Amino acid sequence: MKVLYSIIFLFFCYTVNAQVNSDSILIKKIFDEELSNGQCYENLRYLCKGFGKRLTGSPIAAGAVEWSYHKMRSYGFDTVYKQDVMVPHWVRGATEKAHYELGKSMKIIPVSICALGGSIGGEIKGEVIEVKSFEELRALKKENVKGKIVFFNRPMDDTKINTFGAYGGAVNQRGRGAIEAGYMGAVGVIVRSMSVGINPYPHTGAMRYSDTVSKIPACAISTLDAEKLSDDLKKNTRLFFQYSLYSHTLPDTLSHNVICEIQGSEHPEEIMVMGGHLDAWDLGEGAHDDGAGLVQCLEALRLFKQMGIRPKHTIRCVFFMNEENGLKGGLKYAEMARLNNEKHVLALESDEGGFTPRGFSFDATGDTLARLLGYNKTFHPYYMDDFHMGGGGSDIGPLKEQGCVLMDLSPDTQRYFDFHHAATDVFEGVNKRELLMGAAGIAGIMYLLDTHWEEICGKQ
Amino acid sequence: MKVLYSIIFLFFCYTVNAQVNSDSILIKKIFDEELSNGQCYENLRYLCKGFGKRLTGSPIAAGAVEWSYHKMRSYGFDTVYKQDVMVPHWVRGATEKAHYELGKSMKIIPVSICALGGSIGGEIKGEVIEVKSFEELRALKKENVKGKIVFFNRPMDDTKINTFGAYGGAVNQRGRGAIEAGYMGAVGVIVRSMSVGINPYPHTGAMRYSDTVSKIPACAISTLDAEKLSDDLKKNTRLFFQYSLYSHTLPDTLSHNVICEIQGSEHPEEIMVMGGHLDAWDLGEGAHDDGAGLVQCLEALRLFKQMGIRPKHTIRCVFFMNEENGLKGGLKYAEMARLNNEKHVLALESDEGGFTPRGFSFDATGDTLARLLGYNKTFHPYYMDDFHMGGGGSDIGPLKEQGCVLMDLSPDTQRYFDFHHAATDVFEGVNKRELLMGAAGIAGIMYLLDTHWEEICGKQ
Repeated sequence: MKVLYSIIFLFFCYTVNAQVNSDSILIKKIFDEELSNGQCYENLRYLCKGFGKRLTGSPIAAGAVEWSYHKMRSYGFDTVYKQDVMVPHWVRGATEKAHYELGKSMKIIPVSICALGGSIGGEIKGEVIEVKSFEELRALKKENVKGKIVFFNRPMDDTKINTFGAYGGAVNQRGRGAIEAGYMGAVGVIVRSMSVGINPYPHTGAMRYSDTVSKIPACAISTLDAEKLSDDLKKNTRLFFQYSLYSHTLPDTLSHNVICEIQGSEHPEEIMVMGGHLDAWDLGEGAHDDGAGLVQCLEALRLFKQMGIRPKHTIRCVFFMNEENGLKGGLKYAEMARLNNEKHVLALESDEGGFTPRGFSFDATGDTLARLLGYNKTFHPYYMDDFHMGGGGSDIGPLKEQGCVLMDLSPDTQRYFDFHHAATDVFEGVNKRELLMGAAGIAGIMYLLDTHWEEICGKQ
Repeated sequence: MKVLYSIIFLFFCYTVNAQVNSDSILIKKIFDEELSNGQCYENLRYLCKGFGKRLTGSPIAAGAVEWSYHKMRSYGFDTVYKQDVMVPHWVRGATEKAHYELGKSMKIIPVSICALGGSIGGEIKGEVIEVKSFEELRALKKENVKGKIVFFNRPMDDTKINTFGAYGGAVNQRGRGAIEAGYMGAVGVIVRSMSVGINPYPHTGAMRYSDTVSKIPACAISTLDAEKLSDDLKKNTRLFFQYSLYSHTLPDTLSHNVICEIQGSEHPEEIMVMGGHLDAWDLGEGAHDDGAGLVQCLEALRLFKQMGIRPKHTIRCVFFMNEENGLKGGLKYAEMARLNNEKHVLALESDEGGFTPRGFSFDATGDTLARLLGYNKTFHPYYMDDFHMGGGGSDIGPLKEQGCVLMDLSPDTQRYFDFHHAATDVFEGVNKRELLMGAAGIAGIMYLLDTHWEEICGKQ
């Protein structure tokens, strides 16, 4: 009996080791292929240079949809289609202008600003009140704010090692600043750009209004000019700030998510989806945000096809529309999945820039989470073994209620907010090898999870 | 008795935990200070813009020595001095010229080249023989090589995840190519640049001659032009390549290592040294190689001083001269340490670029190595916990025979060979946060190792 147990045990060890080895060998092949012949860097160049300012609802975004559809078709996937989605159509209009005038000397100081996404236009002139938080603003009396411009100047915390943490600690100024300032009677709102350190680029991003508060024109000021303005406010008893925004919102328009897939050989009804967002802010070219994520996910599916890897589950790649200012694409995708009784088991998003990938984060629980985290060893040779809890992402978030495991690619975060939503986010800011490493990593993890999914979920 | 043991055990746990906590708290303070008020990025700017082409032996290198000395003095360290060292003085001369002429059409194709460091000058014209390795060259008959130009065109292996591995697999073409080609009777040698992927920049670097083989002018060609030349060689039966190098070597000249230190409070006779190299190739500004390493190590010592951290051991920072083409500074430093009976217990080098730091590597053995690797947990919050065997570096290498533990900062390697030894290695290619993270990491590890050194070495 003991001998029999030993034989069974040895056979088990052999089988497990053989599987681990064959996984490692296949993943090595994926990295070799991508680092030698990857296409995603050239795809990103084409997307950025051809359709850089692909703001939701714009003709350029419509062009990017067509390019994406034809690019997917060219790869010969089992299915390629566009999914209709109505999206908001905000327009920046002409380039913004701004300056301030120092009270006594009447000296004119020009300022770099940009309208926040969703802002109304308008020509605003007024005195400036600087605050660091909503609490500080609310503590003022309304009569002291009325008719003035509120300047939210709380910096991102440079001491946060993960810069997304610093972003999270400052971004409410941008999202809700116009509501808070409007409520207090301000005529305009200026927000310090969401960027680390000091640089001359204004960073745009989404902002909201409330139905119950007057809408006021909202803009971002570069961190460099924010510092200077703050200094000048301390030195001058009176300071008049003037800015003109030409932005406005047109009626909602028809746009699309763009979708391609390879059908599963064993569980075609179970879908593993990966994707990023096709829309981008219009100051740069949407290279890191989120051209990089798009072309990486598409590349991962292309690698499956080219290398003849037939997945057990259906693997799908989605270019979501309108992540930046509405999330209509992600919501529509989840709605259609529900209506069509599609079963999503896994969703991966890449939307943190095309930087050196360091691992993946997962939104799962219990044994499933533990098993997922345990796969990090397979990615040690690629310096991508930081597997941690977290996961998700805006576009795939709505799939969570369907019981889908969410995850995302976690690149290094140090450089992200140099580019995010600013004129600096252009193709030249993306490093080829860093981008390709992410694409190979996504292909590798999708292969691994597809192969072992039933085990991971405790069904085997 | 049981109660006594329990009390002792609890006290032990408390002490160890208190120490771990106080280490973590201090290291957090170091990172906070550096990320908020770090000076090394501005130091790097000054060094690169003021003394960019600081080739060993050049007047600019002499200027960089003076700047370094005065910068160190300005920080008020216990000791600052220059250490004499005689160094080689190779000069590039005028900008190199090169083109080739296609046999039949007589079409002229211009080419981007640069002299390799140490090459003689000369005007060379000849047919080109392309080879991938010394073996391939040696397999040819001498009469087939005589009077021709040998073109070494073995690429760096893009599939190596750590790009230093790819460099190691190709760099012998640059170092020894002129000897091998000269031995076979060639009149010139062209080496494919040591760079990943395809780009238009020639990358220089050190090469050697042999006393027993005729010296021939040696240059590097960009990877882009290497690909094109290789294609044209396949398509054309005859192809004449012509290049002119104006480089030459002047007599050895006096230069200096620049050194500063804070004396140890408990073991002042035991030295922990950290550093990088002050000389740089002259095509760019030596920003990543190795301005970054220099300013990081200096910054680490400045943080000790500014934050009032008094080390137990003497901590020293050295700007080594002539790492690139002679290593005279590193050798002189070790020689003087021996002559002066200085006891070096630890040496850290930062010479792999100012990219996101991912950990440290150590050249140590047995329990000491195991204890060093165990400290990686302290650096987990900074995403710098990849502590591994390896370590060392050119400049600190000569200290090894004195029983010194060697280590280096290990940044992410994906982008390094985009910059290394090329015109692209300028200040603008360095990201501020990535650089500062490395400086804080070096300060943090030096603090930790200084605090626990006797434990680490098994003396407690």
